[in-house]
Amino acid sequence: MRAGVDLGGTKIEVLIVEGEREVCGRARRPTPTDGGAEAVVATIALTVEDAADDADVPVDRLTGVGVGSPGAVDAAAGTVGFNSNLAGGWSDPYPFAEELAGRVGTRVRVANDVDAAAGAELALGAGRELPSFLAVWWGTGVGGAVILAGRQWEGNGAAGELGHTVVKLNGRVCPCGRRGCAEAYAGRAAMEARARHLHERGQRTKLFDLMRKANRDRLTSGVWEKALAEDDRLAHELIDDAYDAIAAASASVVNLLDIDGIVLGGGLGTRFGSSATERIRDKMHPHIFNPTRDPAVLPAELGDDGGAIGAALLVG
Amino acid sequence: MRAGVDLGGTKIEVLIVEGEREVCGRARRPTPTDGGAEAVVATIALTVEDAADDADVPVDRLTGVGVGSPGAVDAAAGTVGFNSNLAGGWSDPYPFAEELAGRVGTRVRVANDVDAAAGAELALGAGRELPSFLAVWWGTGVGGAVILAGRQWEGNGAAGELGHTVVKLNGRVCPCGRRGCAEAYAGRAAMEARARHLHERGQRTKLFDLMRKANRDRLTSGVWEKALAEDDRLAHELIDDAYDAIAAASASVVNLLDIDGIVLGGGLGTRFGSSATERIRDKMHPHIFNPTRDPAVLPAELGDDGGAIGAALLVG
Repeated sequence: MRAGVDLGGTKIEVLIVEGEREVCGRARRPTPTDGGAEAVVATIALTVEDAADDADVPVDRLTGVGVGSPGAVDAAAGTVGFNSNLAGGWSDPYPFAEELAGRVGTRVRVANDVDAAAGAELALGAGRELPSFLAVWWGTGVGGAVILAGRQWEGNGAAGELGHTVVKLNGRVCPCGRRGCAEAYAGRAAMEARARHLHERGQRTKLFDLMRKANRDRLTSGVWEKALAEDDRLAHELIDDAYDAIAAASASVVNLLDIDGIVLGGGLGTRFGSSATERIRDKMHPHIFNPTRDPAVLPAELGDDGGAIGAALLVG
Repeated sequence: MRAGVDLGGTKIEVLIVEGEREVCGRARRPTPTDGGAEAVVATIALTVEDAADDADVPVDRLTGVGVGSPGAVDAAAGTVGFNSNLAGGWSDPYPFAEELAGRVGTRVRVANDVDAAAGAELALGAGRELPSFLAVWWGTGVGGAVILAGRQWEGNGAAGELGHTVVKLNGRVCPCGRRGCAEAYAGRAAMEARARHLHERGQRTKLFDLMRKANRDRLTSGVWEKALAEDDRLAHELIDDAYDAIAAASASVVNLLDIDGIVLGGGLGTRFGSSATERIRDKMHPHIFNPTRDPAVLPAELGDDGGAIGAALLVG
């Protein structure tokens, strides 16, 4: 039995996994809002203990703990750096694997969160149908992973920044500070900032009322879904822009790499499921150069658990 | 000794190559303007004979003939199809290698022209410094080739359509009919169409006077260079747009694949050389997501002969 940790901006999700994907325990805690990397590691250790309890196994009997983390992950070194969001943020590479291993008493491996989730799709999900694909992780940001002939292409260690594909020269400002990135149109954080800006300037929208009714302080996937269901015009416009951006970036990758298709995951991708894959497929089509190509656009099969299952595979 | 054939829209260039890159004969003929694939193959056979004469070797003593061709090349089948420009164009796959082999009496291999040129850079040029790079072939269109860890990535056989990266959603119409492709801003054909359109609507430019003075019927690389040297405003604007588009598309690829850099070739790329690589490098920089990356932007080392030398490597 192994533990897989999905470290997110708001919550830490831990699964205890047996075999390839049998979940025999789970636990969740909020991600600390301050205290930096040490606080994050301490909370992960506690959540792993909770999950091990749930599975009725002592923590030190686990084969290992795999962690999928945002930020600049150096998987070989086991470090995580450049993390502006988590627990108040930190910048220098922190010896994440070593510190966590000290607390849980078993080996730890860490990988980029999108890489871990894409690895799960490759091994257990959509990858069984698509030898070469682009994983598109649509959530707070827009992450990517490139699978070529059944293997993840990591470049010099930091491949996958699909969200920072330029889809509109001199376009909208991205949370990263650059202009015209796909994430400037499609990232949940960017969409929320845009909605807030337009709302403050007088544009009507139910988005923020729905947010308050849901007792949230940000526009979650659920809030966006509800606003679309209620035919909120601004929500439709912004989601439409998001689909345009994701489709353009994805089609450009298909044109360059001639891969078999796209796998869509992430918070928003999983929430919108097949309606999102259909919209993206339709919007990619006009940009696909080779008329004999019809790339697949599939929803990530492993859903919300994919990140933690992929993380568990790191110590498989 | 092998023959390498660079099949272009206006001319057929043949080199006789000994060893890796020693050129011991050469010949050139205009590409036929009609007659389709058969006329092209017949003219290539004559040009190979001319070049073999120049090298003082009988054609049937050549180890083989390699051809770099535009259009939809199936290297394994030896066919070329979907060719809208050459010799009046043809659409069905034509058994190019077989027909040419019948005429020259030695084995023939055919590859996509940009793939052949990128292969030469990989084996003999910039690839010695950059294990993973994007070849950007800037000419009538904008071609690409992706080299990952010292090997060309071919996808399902048609990888490399960098020119049809979307750099501006709802942007300029591309010669391919789609909107916002890099080639819509950077391809010589698209730039000429744009210049002609603006000139007809009253915008001043020396481009077409320079074209006539040079006794040309299109805006060649040389005409663009001269117009820039004479500070023609429209030429500067259009070339600046081209650099923006190439830089955005290239930076997006670096962000996604985390490769070591870019190699710039093609008619315009070779003509503008280091001034182009410097401009593109400067314009890529604001789009590069990872602050620790500084991708190289190098001019193709093999220059105008690269296409034919790469084609010769196909039968090396």
